[in-house]
Order: sequence, then C-alpha cells, then structure tokens
Amino acid sequence: MEEQITLEDIVSLCKRRGFVYPSSDIYGGFAGVYDYGHYGILLKNNIQAAWWRHMVQLRDDVYGLDSAIFMHPTTWVASGHVGGFNDPQVDCRKCKNRMRADHILEAFGINADKATIEYINAELDRLREKKELKCATCGSSDLTPARVFSLMVKSNLGSPTEELTDENAVYLRPETCGGIYLEYKNTIDSLHPKLPFGIAQVGKAFRNEIVARQFVFRTREFEQMEMQYFVHPDDMKKSYEMWKQERWQWYLAYGIPAEKIRWYQHEKLAHYASEAYDIEFSFSSLGGFKEVEGIHARGDWDLSQHAKHSGVDLSYTDEATKQKFIPHIMETSVGLGRLFLMFLDHAYTQEEVNGETRMVLKLDKRLAPVKVAVFPLLRNKPELVQQARDVYDMFKGVFMCEFDDNGNIGKRYRRQDEIGTPWCLTIDFQTLEDGTITVRDRDTLAQERVAINECVAYLKERYEK
Amino acid sequence: MEEQITLEDIVSLCKRRGFVYPSSDIYGGFAGVYDYGHYGILLKNNIQAAWWRHMVQLRDDVYGLDSAIFMHPTTWVASGHVGGFNDPQVDCRKCKNRMRADHILEAFGINADKATIEYINAELDRLREKKELKCATCGSSDLTPARVFSLMVKSNLGSPTEELTDENAVYLRPETCGGIYLEYKNTIDSLHPKLPFGIAQVGKAFRNEIVARQFVFRTREFEQMEMQYFVHPDDMKKSYEMWKQERWQWYLAYGIPAEKIRWYQHEKLAHYASEAYDIEFSFSSLGGFKEVEGIHARGDWDLSQHAKHSGVDLSYTDEATKQKFIPHIMETSVGLGRLFLMFLDHAYTQEEVNGETRMVLKLDKRLAPVKVAVFPLLRNKPELVQQARDVYDMFKGVFMCEFDDNGNIGKRYRRQDEIGTPWCLTIDFQTLEDGTITVRDRDTLAQERVAINECVAYLKERYEK
Repeated sequence: MEEQITLEDIVSLCKRRGFVYPSSDIYGGFAGVYDYGHYGILLKNNIQAAWWRHMVQLRDDVYGLDSAIFMHPTTWVASGHVGGFNDPQVDCRKCKNRMRADHILEAFGINADKATIEYINAELDRLREKKELKCATCGSSDLTPARVFSLMVKSNLGSPTEELTDENAVYLRPETCGGIYLEYKNTIDSLHPKLPFGIAQVGKAFRNEIVARQFVFRTREFEQMEMQYFVHPDDMKKSYEMWKQERWQWYLAYGIPAEKIRWYQHEKLAHYASEAYDIEFSFSSLGGFKEVEGIHARGDWDLSQHAKHSGVDLSYTDEATKQKFIPHIMETSVGLGRLFLMFLDHAYTQEEVNGETRMVLKLDKRLAPVKVAVFPLLRNKPELVQQARDVYDMFKGVFMCEFDDNGNIGKRYRRQDEIGTPWCLTIDFQTLEDGTITVRDRDTLAQERVAINECVAYLKERYEK
Repeated sequence: MEEQITLEDIVSLCKRRGFVYPSSDIYGGFAGVYDYGHYGILLKNNIQAAWWRHMVQLRDDVYGLDSAIFMHPTTWVASGHVGGFNDPQVDCRKCKNRMRADHILEAFGINADKATIEYINAELDRLREKKELKCATCGSSDLTPARVFSLMVKSNLGSPTEELTDENAVYLRPETCGGIYLEYKNTIDSLHPKLPFGIAQVGKAFRNEIVARQFVFRTREFEQMEMQYFVHPDDMKKSYEMWKQERWQWYLAYGIPAEKIRWYQHEKLAHYASEAYDIEFSFSSLGGFKEVEGIHARGDWDLSQHAKHSGVDLSYTDEATKQKFIPHIMETSVGLGRLFLMFLDHAYTQEEVNGETRMVLKLDKRLAPVKVAVFPLLRNKPELVQQARDVYDMFKGVFMCEFDDNGNIGKRYRRQDEIGTPWCLTIDFQTLEDGTITVRDRDTLAQERVAINECVAYLKERYEK
C-alpha cells in the first residue's frame, strides 16, 4: 500500500534534519524564499552535478556557461518581459490577502489565461453582483478590482545615488536563458561550435510571484537549470525528439519510476513556439501531477529579437553550404528547487520493520547527501572510538562521510535513514579482534562484515555499479 | 626569467578562449559584471569544489549552508550595513567619471579611511584651492563635492506594486555571512553540533561599488566563499591560529608558491574585531600584492546584534559546564572571482620551446577545466576517427574531456595548452597496428605510448597522485 506523504511531512523533516529552513526565521521569516541547510545543500549540489554530468560532461555538443544575474536592461525589452511579464492581482481589503485574479476566475470555470485586464474585471464584476466573489482566506467580499503587475524584480545596481524609477531600474533576471542568448555570439566566436550545439547553465532567477506557496516548489528566489540547443530549422524535429528522450531517461536513471512522470503537451503555444511539452511528476506532497521541466521549441524568436534590439548580427553561416540563417532554439528548462522536492517526495518512505515504523529517504545513492556514516559501538571505549576515527579518515577523502558516536546504535541508524545515508559502518568489539566492521545497507537492512582494509574498495564498487 | 603578465593578457585570453566574457556584450556591456564561459565555469566550479572539499568534506566540524540572497531587511540594520556601508564619491561634471573621494585623497598622501564626509570635503577644498584637484580621466577640475552613498543594492522583491522607497526596500546581500548568522540557531537546533563548529557557504553578493575595475577582481555582482567558526571565547586564539594555518596550506596545496602569498595584518580593526589578517597574493596582472582572503576574529558582535534586533536568544549552553554564553566568531572569507584571477595569473606561462613561444596555463590538474583531450591524427581517416571516438567515450564518464579533430596536431596542442589541459591523447596509425596511443604531458611535453586498455587506469593514477 502506497503511503500518502503530505507537504507538512516533508517541510517538517527538512527543518528537523537540516535540509531546508524558512528564510530569516529569527526575524519572523521572509516570504517566498528558503535557505538550504547542511543536508539540503549537499542534496541540491548532487542533483545539480547529476544534471551537469548528463547535460555537459557526457556530451560533446553542449557547453557550460555561468552568466550573471544582472544584464543590460534592454535584454528584457527585447525578450518582451518588460511590459509583458505580468499577472493580474486582487487584494482583500479586510485581511490583506493577495490573490491571482486568473486563479479566482479559474475556480469558477472561467478561463482567463492571457485575457485582458478589462475582461478579467468584467468577469469579476459579474461574480461580485452574484455575491459569489469572496476572499479565499477570510471570506470577506471587500476585494479590490484586479490590477496588472509585473513579475520583474527591480533594483538600483549601478545607480546608487538616484531615486529608483522605471527608467533607471535594472532587473534581476526572471529566467536564466536570457544570459545564454546574450552569450551565443561570444560562444560562437571563442569555441567555434558547429550546429547543432547547446549552452547549459545553472543559476538563480527572481520573480515577484503574488502567491509563493508550496514550499520550494514555487519561490520568489529560485534556481533554474536551462539548456538552449541551437539547430538548423530543418533539424528541429530530430533534435526535439532526441532531447525529449534524453530528459525522460535522466529521471529514470536517478530512480524516478516511469509511472510517476508523464508528458503534458501545451495546447496554447506562445506565438513564437512550435512545440512545447512539460515533464510532470506525481507529487504525493502536492496532491498530484505538477510541472518540473519544460522542453520547448522556440523558433528563431529569441535570437531575432536580440539581433534587432542590439543591432548585432546573430546569424550563423554554415561552412559547407554557405547558408546564412538565424538558428532555431529548443530549450530544456528545469527548476532545481522542484527537482529537490521531487526527489524528497519520491524518496520519503515509511515502512514497518519488526513491528516499528521506520522513516527512510530512499534516495539514489549518487544523490544522497552523505554516503557513509561511521559509528563506534560505544563512545566511552577509546579503542573503539580510535578505530572508528581511523575508518572515518580512510573514507572522508573518497565520499561525503559522517562520524557519529551520539546515542545508541539504533538511534544513529534512524538518524542516517532520515537523511538517506546508503551505508552505515559500525566498529564493535569484534573489530578489535578480527579487523572487520559491520556494513549496514539502508534499503535491504542487510548487515555484512567486511575487513577494514577492504571496505573502501567494497563500497566504491557498490557505489559505482 | 619571470615574464610579467598584464591584465590585458589575461582579459584577452579569457575572451578568446571562452573563460570570461564582458557581460551583455551585444548591448554594449553592463559595467562591473562578467559572464563565465565554458572553460571559465569549469575552472570556477573546480576552485569552488576544492574549497568545499577542504572546508566541509574533509572536516567533521564544519557544516554546509546555502542561504538565500534575500533576507529580512532588519538583518542589515542589525549588522550596521544600512546607514553604515558607505563610500564617499566625487563625480566629474565634464566626462561623468565617478571616483572614490578617499582614493583621490590617498593619492595626495591624505588618509581618509573612515573619515567623516565633512573632513573629506574640507581636504578636497584645500586641493581645489591649490588647483591640484583634477579628474583622473579627463583632467577637468570641474568636480562635484564628495557625497556619501550606500554600497547596498536595493530591490522591490515582495513589494511589486508599490513605489520603491527606503522604507519598503529589501536589499541584495552585500556579503554571504549574514545568512550564516541567521541560520546559526536552526543549525544548532537541527544538527546539535558542539563548539567549536563552523558553517560554510558559497554564494553571490552585490555591492554598488563606485569603481568596479580590475576585471573579475572587483565586481558589483560577485561570489564569496565564507566560513564562520563559532567558538568559546577562551578558545579563540587556538582556533584562529589553526585556521590561519589551514587556509595558508590550502593555497600551497593547489600550487601557489609560498613566496607569492603573504600575511597582511590589519592595524585598524573594526570596533568588534580582535584580530584580522588577510592573505595577499602577488598578482603580476595587477602590479603587486592584493587581498584575496580575510581571516578575522569578530568577537560576539554579530550574534549579539541579531539577538538584540530579533529578540531571539542566540546563546549556547555548554552541556558539560552548563555555562551559557554567546559564542565568538572567526571567519575565513574569500572572493571566488579573486581566486579565479589568482590561479590564472599564476598559471599563465609563456616559455620558449624549440625556438617558438608557447603559451600554456600551468593550472593544478584538479583545477584544470578539461583533464583529457582526445585527437585522431587525421580527421579524414574514418578508422582513426572511430578509434578516437571510442577512446573519448572511455574517458568522458571519468574526466571532463574534449574531442578535437580540427586543424593539425600542433594547433590542437596549442589550443589545449592555452586552456591548461594536462593530457592530450593522440590516436595515429600505430594505434591501428599495436593498440597504443600517445599521451602527451602539458608541462613536461613528454610523450609516452600507452595501451588503450590501460590508459584510463594510467591517467587515473597520475591524476590522483
């Protein structure tokens, strides 16, 4: 029987065990932003490394990039974000709750996706007249009309002494791909890649989301891992299918079962897009399938816009055919916070062992924050502690390890289970006699005795297979 | 004879080979911000990983953290940054050049470090009367009086609809350590560490620097790697000495010679600090020794301030002695961009080989962006290309690799030398006969023939030793 995991379960584990803390906790919190604790950053780094390995290291057609959060403001005019990246918002005058107007209408079966603000307000007025319009939080009917507001986050970087106006504002990027388009030309000029090729990067982006709930699934400060693949228009279909396969397989390779992910095909496409699929994961903690990754064919829209607004020629000349054209782009775009929540959601397991409930994170071993924990059976026996220290020192250069002599062994196992550590090594009295230690497997709970001088090779082999 | 490397040499290499590009290049640039290209992000990631390995993985007393860029605004009131993190600035009315007033005075031998704005303007007036005050760029004497302005970067995250004022502004962090202080309590509560222990993190920070020059040495958007070590006041001296040694050794371990680094002891200390040393590196490209890392004893200032402003008890209770106190803090703080420039500056080598000048980056092999490059001798011999592809496929899962069949072998060697690749493997006609390939060493230029089925083990052994 499948156990239903709630978001509360995960939030609670994350705070209790040091994966994720609410930001600025001691100051009462800072909405829509989270801090990753020790195990959280280790897990997040491992997810990021797994993405980078498959997207960059194992391929010879994708290059890495790390473009800055700040770009020339015209970037976001060219991309259509300035003036166009908006959400309609309604405020409750009584409890100050802020809601997305399109979400309110959606609850009444009215589709307001990409609707004008006039349409939205007319529909809200209809509901108001029927006395059906109420605050989702306090129930008050005293709501403001819908107003459009920008998701773009403004700052005064570079203009420290002036008042911040719309004219001198610079923006924190709302998505990382903008930096890839701007460095397309430098990449071509310095690395001379041939089409098709991709540029991949991981980085922070910022959006003034009205409603930032659902833990790290939707935050105002977040991390994206995006890859833009530049192709000849004729090769788009082939490249698109290849990347759909590649990305699908990546989830399977890191332990997500095929029945928990699915394709969602966008019916309404942005005017420049020719095809758009999302990978959705079935989040137990969010009550169903939600988007984690988008794989979108964007045509030549982005490079054409930046060429137009910058006056710089962004076309590509095929050496063989001498054909000159603006490459088409397809992207894979995934939220690192969403993957983080996905892996936790999937790994979070409660199972019965000998009549007791065990909570264990069954993370892929490559993603687990800590690979090996080393315990002396008793902390007050110096010879056990010393031997355990020696074993810890053997492993710490090879794997992320932990030494723990706190509480009894059962308690230490439970702690390591909760953070997903694949192997626990115990140094006991038999160790002092025959030089073997106990290796306990997180998932099977099998315990095996292995000679100390063989245990690094023993675990390296199991880790790599 | 030591070759003098100029900043221009490094900037030029970085752009030509895809290490670092000026930001928003196609839009005319965005001052004080840089983008890292393919080899740049690989090198930067390796430097970051080397720091993390020594600061977190190899220690059992330091925890990782990844706190957000955005924090509750009171954070920066408590820390003294709001209202106190200022630089005096002078503008040239003619050419619009912006200068730091204290730097202008410094050039006349007048120390204005921490001076009041009144003092600074009185000194500037004295120079003006003597007709000695001139713009550093255009020579005009039409300069504004000095004005104080804040280095803090403001934004409207979370207040999208209001005008941005000083009251509702939230700040992009000017340093990463603030997030560590705020998560000190959550770390204690979830991980239960005993003193002394540290919290380490890598992340972006932002400052409205008036003068952001010297390439990636001083930028408005930058990355810090900081570790805050929490100790009993009585243990400060011991911890401080230990960390001074640790950090010094780190530079030596990654190939920086002892004669190129030195300690700089701060004579003027911040009122809360008891000791402050910097590690300075002798930058050929910047004309001398410059600070790369600070190791500072900060007392209980930070935690006391945050306790006061948040009303949350941030004291620590020693289980054994029952003593309750605010831990003292010492920090190690280093700029990732500065380390990046330091390693390039040190590695950049021009040497004569057979009467020709060779440019080579002699980076530590663990830091080199690419470890192994694989070449088929000729690109138009399918059997050589296929064999080279097979060798590339053997290596790509083990190391960051490159396949290159472009131009003649000499040109390919030069390209790999310029990006610092330790080993180049060539597949030639002898390979087809006896199954051996040529392994060429970047530094010794020695070429050795190694059997294909042994070459992974051969290079793994050399990489790890």
